[in-house]
Amino acid sequence: MNNEAPLFGRIALIGIGLIGSSLARSINKYSISEHISIYSRSPETLKKACDLKLGDSYHRDPAQAVKNADLVIICTPMGAYTTVAQAIAPGLKMGAIVSDVGSSKRSVFSDLNPYLPDGIHLVPAHPVAGTADSGPESGFSELFKGHWCIITPLETTDPTAVTKVKNLWIRCGMMVEIMDASRHDHVLAITSHLPQLISYTIVGTVADLQDDLKSEVTKFAAGGLRDFTRIAASDPTMWRDVCLKNKDAVLDVLGRFMEDLTALQRAIRRGQGDLLEDSFSSAREIRRRVIEAKQDFINVKPKDES
Amino acid sequence: MNNEAPLFGRIALIGIGLIGSSLARSINKYSISEHISIYSRSPETLKKACDLKLGDSYHRDPAQAVKNADLVIICTPMGAYTTVAQAIAPGLKMGAIVSDVGSSKRSVFSDLNPYLPDGIHLVPAHPVAGTADSGPESGFSELFKGHWCIITPLETTDPTAVTKVKNLWIRCGMMVEIMDASRHDHVLAITSHLPQLISYTIVGTVADLQDDLKSEVTKFAAGGLRDFTRIAASDPTMWRDVCLKNKDAVLDVLGRFMEDLTALQRAIRRGQGDLLEDSFSSAREIRRRVIEAKQDFINVKPKDES
Repeated sequence: MNNEAPLFGRIALIGIGLIGSSLARSINKYSISEHISIYSRSPETLKKACDLKLGDSYHRDPAQAVKNADLVIICTPMGAYTTVAQAIAPGLKMGAIVSDVGSSKRSVFSDLNPYLPDGIHLVPAHPVAGTADSGPESGFSELFKGHWCIITPLETTDPTAVTKVKNLWIRCGMMVEIMDASRHDHVLAITSHLPQLISYTIVGTVADLQDDLKSEVTKFAAGGLRDFTRIAASDPTMWRDVCLKNKDAVLDVLGRFMEDLTALQRAIRRGQGDLLEDSFSSAREIRRRVIEAKQDFINVKPKDES
Repeated sequence: MNNEAPLFGRIALIGIGLIGSSLARSINKYSISEHISIYSRSPETLKKACDLKLGDSYHRDPAQAVKNADLVIICTPMGAYTTVAQAIAPGLKMGAIVSDVGSSKRSVFSDLNPYLPDGIHLVPAHPVAGTADSGPESGFSELFKGHWCIITPLETTDPTAVTKVKNLWIRCGMMVEIMDASRHDHVLAITSHLPQLISYTIVGTVADLQDDLKSEVTKFAAGGLRDFTRIAASDPTMWRDVCLKNKDAVLDVLGRFMEDLTALQRAIRRGQGDLLEDSFSSAREIRRRVIEAKQDFINVKPKDES
C-alpha cells in the first residue's frame, strides 16, 4: 500500500481496543513499523487481536511487550496509565519514546512520569477521532484520516522524539497540531467531553422514565434523541476516566453550559421568543465554521475490512 | 411509481419548507392527490416551489389556495397557525379536513379551532422525521419513509377524517400511531425538543467563547461537538415556536435534565468513578432499544432528486 520506508523498527501497543486496533491496522497498511507487539490485559481481547492478525507478537506481560520497542503507545483507558507505567518500566529500552492516545493530556505527565526511567521520551498525543464502538473488532485503518491529532510535549521534550510521533500520525492520515497540555484539556472539554457527558445525561434522563413511556421514547427517537443514544453508546470506562482525569476543565465548561441552560429555561418560561430565536440563530455560525474547517465528517469502517 | 387510486381530489399545502416540500414530492410520487395547491407567504419561496414543479397551482392568497381542497395541511412554523387559520377560513370547503405537521399538538386545538368554521374536521398530525436543512429545495420524497407519524385527534373527531389522514402518511411510507395530544407533547419534549434545545445551548456556549478559542473549537469538532452543530443548524424560527407552544412539557423535561446534570457534576467533583461508570453504562440499554425499534437511521436526500 505504501512505498515509504518504515518510521520505526518496533512499536508496542499497550491496549488494543477501538483506537489501538485502528492504529495497528494503519501501521500495517502504511508500513509504519517493521514489527508491532501487542499487549492486552484480557486474554480474550489478545486472542481476538491475534485472530485479526493485528500484530507480529502478542504478550501477556507488559514488560515483554515493550522490550526493544522504539515507540510504546498506551491505548488503554486513562485510569490504567499508572499501573501500565509501573508494569512497562522494567522492559523499556533506553531512548524509547512513550506516547498515548488519551483524551486528557495534563494528567498524562503526573500519571506516567514518576514511573518512567531516565532516558525515556514522554510524548503525549491525542488523535481526535473515534466512533461509539469499542473492542479490537471495531477498529479500521482509516479511522484517523482527515482529522486532527494534538501532541502536547513539554518545552523540554526532545524535538526528535516529537517529530517521530508527529510523522506516525501524519502517515495515518492525520493533521497534527502541537499544543500546550492545559490548552488541549480546555479545548477538548468543550468539543468532546461536554458533548459526551450531555449525551450520557440526556439518555440517562430517558432511562429513568417509567417503562411504558420508555417504549414510546425509543419509538419516536427519530426526532433527535437517536443521535444522542449513538454518542452515549461509547465505552463507559473510558469516559469515566476522562471525567476524572480532566476534572477541572470539565467542571468549568459544565458550569458555563448550565448557566446558559438556565438562561434558556428562563427565556422559555417568560415566553421571550425573540431571545430564543436570536440564540438559536447564532448556532448556525458555528456550524458554518465547522464545515469550513472540513471537520463535518466521520470515517466509518468499510464492510470489507476485518 | 404507484398504481393505487389517489386518496384525495385536491390537497392544499400551506407553507412549503423542508416538510411541506417533501410532502409535495411524496404526494406526487405516490399519486396521493389529483391536484396539489401551494401557498407560501414569501414570493421567493413560492417561485422556488413552482420552479421545482412541486404543485399544480401556486397561490399568494391562502383562502384561494384552500378553495375546493379536500385536505389542507399547514406546514408553516407553529407561531403562524392562528394567522393561517384566520386567512384560510373563508376559503375552506364544507367537510374539508384541516391537518398540520407541527411538533407540538395540544396547542394546535387552541390555535386553530376558534377560527375554523363548523363542518371542518381538524386532525392534527406530526410526522416525526426531518433533517437540519430548510427551504423547498431541501425536501425529498423519501424523508418520511420508515419513521412514525403521530396523529392526535379528539375523541369527538370524525373517524373517517382520521383514517384519511392516516392513509396519506402510510402511503408516504410512515407507520402511524394515534395518541392523545398531551401524551404526544410529553413524549416529544423528551425525544425531540430537549435534544434540540441542548444542542442549541451547547453550540451557544461555544459561540460565546473568545475568538481564538473558537477556531480551535471548530477544528477539533470531531471529538463530538460536530453532531451537535449539525442538529443546531435547524430552523431557529420553527424551534422558537416549538418551545413556546410546548412550554409546559419542555420546562418539565428541562427541569429533570438539569437535576440529572447537577448530580453528574457532583459525582465528577467528588471523583465518584463507580457512580459515573454505572450511569454511563445504563445509557447503552436505551441505545439497544432504539436499534430494536428500528429507528436508528435517517433518510437523506438522494443526489438525483430535484
